[in-house]
Amino acid sequence: MRGYTDDKEAYLKRLRRIEGQVRGLHRMVENDEYCIDVLTQISAATKALQAVAIGLLDEHLKHCVASAITDGAESAPDKIREATDAIARLVRS
Amino acid sequence: MRGYTDDKEAYLKRLRRIEGQVRGLHRMVENDEYCIDVLTQISAATKALQAVAIGLLDEHLKHCVASAITDGAESAPDKIREATDAIARLVRS
Amino acid sequence: MRGYTDDKEAYLKRLRRIEGQVRGLHRMVENDEYCIDVLTQISAATKALQAVAIGLLDEHLKHCVASAITDGAESAPDKIREATDAIARLVRS
Amino acid sequence: MRGYTDDKEAYLKRLRRIEGQVRGLHRMVENDEYCIDVLTQISAATKALQAVAIGLLDEHLKHCVASAITDGAESAPDKIREATDAIARLVRS
Repeated sequence: MRGYTDDKEAYLKRLRRIEGQVRGLHRMVENDEYCIDVLTQISAATKALQAVAIGLLDEHLKHCVASAITDGAESAPDKIREATDAIARLVRS
Repeated sequence: MRGYTDDKEAYLKRLRRIEGQVRGLHRMVENDEYCIDVLTQISAATKALQAVAIGLLDEHLKHCVASAITDGAESAPDKIREATDAIARLVRS
Repeated sequence: MRGYTDDKEAYLKRLRRIEGQVRGLHRMVENDEYCIDVLTQISAATKALQAVAIGLLDEHLKHCVASAITDGAESAPDKIREATDAIARLVRS
Repeated sequence: MRGYTDDKEAYLKRLRRIEGQVRGLHRMVENDEYCIDVLTQISAATKALQAVAIGLLDEHLKHCVASAITDGAESAPDKIREATDAIARLVRS
C-alpha cells in the first residue's frame, strides 16, 4: 500500500461502504429477511471486495513490482511470484 | 431466513466476525500496510462470506424449497429457479 | 442426468463447443499466441463450463431432488446436502 | 506466450488433458451419468483451466511485463493495465 496515497481516500470509502453492507447482512439475518435477498446482498459485497482487490493489485503491479524491476532488485522475481500467489488466492476465493 | 432460528445465532456471529475483518481491511489500508497482506485478508473475507452464503443456501433448499415442493405449491418451480439464479450469482461473484 | 432428455442434445452441443475452445487454446499456445489472448479464451471456456454446471444443477434440483422430496424419500436430506456440496465446489472453483 | 518455450510442452500436455476431461463430460452426459458426478467433473476441469491461466499469467508478468518495464517502454503502464484486466476477468469467471 505504500505510496498509494492518491487513491487511498477512495479505497477507504469503498471499504467503509462494504463494512456497511456486511452490517446490513447482519441486520437482514437478525430480522429473518428472505434468504434469497440475503444471498443477493452477499454476492454484491463479495463483488465489491473483489473490485477493491483488483484495484489494489493493479497499483501494486504499477508501483511496487514495477520499481523492483526498474531498480534491477534481486527481489523482483520474488515480488512477481508473491503477486501471482495473491492472484491465485483471489481466483480461487 | 424464516424459521432458521437454530443456526441464527451462529450466522449472526459469523457475520459480525466478517464485519470485523472488513474493518480490519480499512485499518490496514489506512496504515499503508503491505498490499499483498491486504489482498490476503480480502481473500479470507470473501471466502468467509461465501461460506455463509453456502450455509444459508443449504437451509433455504432444506426448508423453503423443500416445503414448497412437499405442499405441491404452484410456486415450487419458481422457488427452484430463484435458488438457481442465486447460485449463478454466487458462482460468478 | 437421468430423464433430462429434453435438453440433452443442447448440453451435448455446448460441451462439444467447449471441447473445441480447449482445443483452440492448445493451438494458441502451440503457435505462441499472445498470452493475454490465451487468458481471455480461458476465461470464456471457464464461463461456458460454469453455465453448463448451473443449467445441470437447475435440472437436478427440479427433477432428482424434487422427486426425492415429493416421494418423502428418506434420502431427500442427503440429496440436498449432496447438491449443496456440489454448489460449494462450483463457487470455490 | 512468446518465448515461454521452457514450459510450453508442459502447458500443451495440461491443455490436452483438459480437452480429454471435457470430452469425458460429453460422454458422461451422453450416458446419462449422475448429475452430481458431472458437476464434480466440471469443477475439476474449471480448476485445471484456472491453474493454467495462473501459470501463464505468472510467466507473462515475469517476461512480457517485466521486459516492457526494464526497457522503459512507453507501453509498460498499458501492459500492466492489460494484465490487470485479464486478472479481473479470471477472478469473475
